[in-house]
Amino acid sequence: MKVQGLRGTRDFFPEKMRELNYLFSTWKSVVEGFGYEEMDGPMLEPAKLWTLKSGDEIPEQMYLFKDKKGMDVAVRPELTPTLARMVADKQKALIKPIKWYSIPRCWRYEAPQTGRLREFFQLNVDCLGTDSMQADAEVIVTAINIMKAFGCTKEDFFIRLCNRKLISSLLLSFNIKKKDLQEVSRWIDKKEKLFDKDFIKGLKSLELGSGQIDAIKDMLKMDFSKVNVNELNEEGKQGYNELKELIGYLKDYNVLDFCKIDFSLMRGFDYYTSTVFEVYDASMEFRAIAGGGRYDDLVKDFGGDRCPGVGYGMGDVVLGLFLLKKGKMPNLQRDVDYYIAPVSKEVVKQSIKIANKLRKKFRVELDLSNRKLKKQFDYADAINAAKIVIIGERDLKLNKVTIRDMKTGKEKKVKISEL
Amino acid sequence: MKVQGLRGTRDFFPEKMRELNYLFSTWKSVVEGFGYEEMDGPMLEPAKLWTLKSGDEIPEQMYLFKDKKGMDVAVRPELTPTLARMVADKQKALIKPIKWYSIPRCWRYEAPQTGRLREFFQLNVDCLGTDSMQADAEVIVTAINIMKAFGCTKEDFFIRLCNRKLISSLLLSFNIKKKDLQEVSRWIDKKEKLFDKDFIKGLKSLELGSGQIDAIKDMLKMDFSKVNVNELNEEGKQGYNELKELIGYLKDYNVLDFCKIDFSLMRGFDYYTSTVFEVYDASMEFRAIAGGGRYDDLVKDFGGDRCPGVGYGMGDVVLGLFLLKKGKMPNLQRDVDYYIAPVSKEVVKQSIKIANKLRKKFRVELDLSNRKLKKQFDYADAINAAKIVIIGERDLKLNKVTIRDMKTGKEKKVKISEL
Repeated sequence: MKVQGLRGTRDFFPEKMRELNYLFSTWKSVVEGFGYEEMDGPMLEPAKLWTLKSGDEIPEQMYLFKDKKGMDVAVRPELTPTLARMVADKQKALIKPIKWYSIPRCWRYEAPQTGRLREFFQLNVDCLGTDSMQADAEVIVTAINIMKAFGCTKEDFFIRLCNRKLISSLLLSFNIKKKDLQEVSRWIDKKEKLFDKDFIKGLKSLELGSGQIDAIKDMLKMDFSKVNVNELNEEGKQGYNELKELIGYLKDYNVLDFCKIDFSLMRGFDYYTSTVFEVYDASMEFRAIAGGGRYDDLVKDFGGDRCPGVGYGMGDVVLGLFLLKKGKMPNLQRDVDYYIAPVSKEVVKQSIKIANKLRKKFRVELDLSNRKLKKQFDYADAINAAKIVIIGERDLKLNKVTIRDMKTGKEKKVKISEL
Repeated sequence: MKVQGLRGTRDFFPEKMRELNYLFSTWKSVVEGFGYEEMDGPMLEPAKLWTLKSGDEIPEQMYLFKDKKGMDVAVRPELTPTLARMVADKQKALIKPIKWYSIPRCWRYEAPQTGRLREFFQLNVDCLGTDSMQADAEVIVTAINIMKAFGCTKEDFFIRLCNRKLISSLLLSFNIKKKDLQEVSRWIDKKEKLFDKDFIKGLKSLELGSGQIDAIKDMLKMDFSKVNVNELNEEGKQGYNELKELIGYLKDYNVLDFCKIDFSLMRGFDYYTSTVFEVYDASMEFRAIAGGGRYDDLVKDFGGDRCPGVGYGMGDVVLGLFLLKKGKMPNLQRDVDYYIAPVSKEVVKQSIKIANKLRKKFRVELDLSNRKLKKQFDYADAINAAKIVIIGERDLKLNKVTIRDMKTGKEKKVKISEL
């Protein structure tokens, strides 16, 4: 009986797995260069990890079920609450700053569409234990360096950047009520996907007047240099200064020309408290390639002491589509050094011995089914073997084998002892 | 609010993650040396992938739930049915033999105990598309070489080996009915965990007489050389010859002294058709470290053409415990080449520039929170940094920095241009 995989999932045949591993190894090499250490948590977690603090969108899209003991279990939709739980659990023993990365496999139940699958992988980079904007700068720079490591330039991507405290203070200065801030933020977050009239309708449903709506629309397009600091409350001033300091560090890192302050940037998660940022496609064709921010209260929310933190997630799906579109996904080939071709069943024993020897240093495939030499050559070609070692009875009597270079087609006889 | 992770799951803090990555990288390097390519499937699959063909044990222990559309979904308890589904899906296009490996994360709902957790990782190595026992020999050799790569010897582990056809034929020769074979195999499989009287009780419940039970008990201890081929049916003779041929290849690979033919070896899964084997702890203290066999019908069962295959799974949990117990788990340290220590906030900009420069080649950490030098030194020590680069104002005026070797404690001044 033929069985199909679930909708929104992918089968990683080796060609696709090579692409996935290319993303993983590039991610790892950049963030390990900054001293981040790999960690991970379980794939299933108590559902309350997300129902507590992630706003509405994530729990709605979660794979949720009751286990055999009636416990509410979630297939993780993201890693950050797990990370906060782990920090809260071992907080005293952990050296600060905590610099962690992870590549969790995650699930969301939503209609599969371009860039959104039900199963995906997501690089997480997090720095906890310091309030300093130097940490925010560092994690943003890791994201920029990752994009550069994939061969992307300023023409391909940019960083959208803002600060939650600053945005909230601006919204409050338009006489929007504190209790409505979250809902207003959600409408702003959704704005790009909406017609203007639906956006306005949404804000009006929160009883905002047209003066307020105009003020919001102006804010979304505002230049950072135009912010009137005097109109900000204390928290807003703090956010303003944080953003200014962050920009200073990004300048020191020589990446400021990758960054753009954008007051329309909200990020969907309710746990961000200060810096928010996204890696964005310069042609605006794709969804955000990565997104994150500062979450200073999350560890405390999970029963720990206060432990400020900043981090981001970069999924494999949008990134993969983006790199393919930009022609930046390399043509990754199978990598076999030697294919060993016994000419007959009589030389299998010697072939095994030679394979044993070569495998100490090389990737070696050996015929497993006594195929004709012609078929073996076709196979060696198909698996992209660099060289074929032909094991023949006559050669063996002279303690020799024939090596064929698959690129040049040239053959030479080599003593077995010299292999 | 403090939240605990689910029972039988692990939090991989970086120290534990290093151990896990050590297992993964050793697995990968050995099997890639034999030309196996990495693949993977989704973590959630239609439940029927397992309810169709895996006997009773796996479906009973599966994490099963209905998704929002009422579809029966399983968190995968193992990879093999996914692999068979994938082969059946692209069978014509795949080059044979198909040599795949994977390191799936899997879940089983069972009472957590030593060596059995609810979440685990499992190396899968599979070779499909050939009936030849050369394939069986190769996958067994990859398992042996993995154990050797972990520093294990003949004193630490051995391979238990048998053939399903041969065992079935022997059981039939004791006049056990064909319909009871599966149940008898299950009792044999469980025998090591049972008191002798419970084992006998189990067989009696299948209406076996004491003569038959004695014959089974003799068989379990039988030597391969004592098999009376004349008593075997056609399939049994085939199994006998397969096992004999396999032993020949294992001799050619020079690993025969790792292998022991064992007629008590059943393996729990119903999909094995011929060779079965396990990697076993020589001191018999742990459960099987790995187990597998030949499954010639599985691809056909999932709607493909016949595609014989052989493979095994090696979980991380028993293996990890085994290596720790044997003192074979290396002491894996954090690996940082340089820690950059700005002496004051004034030199942060220069410190960032130097970090940027060194990160082109090295793993580099930089202070992120303007800590006092003493605290920075303690941190550099704690993260196991090889060298500290001290950035001071006076040095900078001479375009120099001070480098401290953390092993020797020696310091020297170096020109920035020479870093």
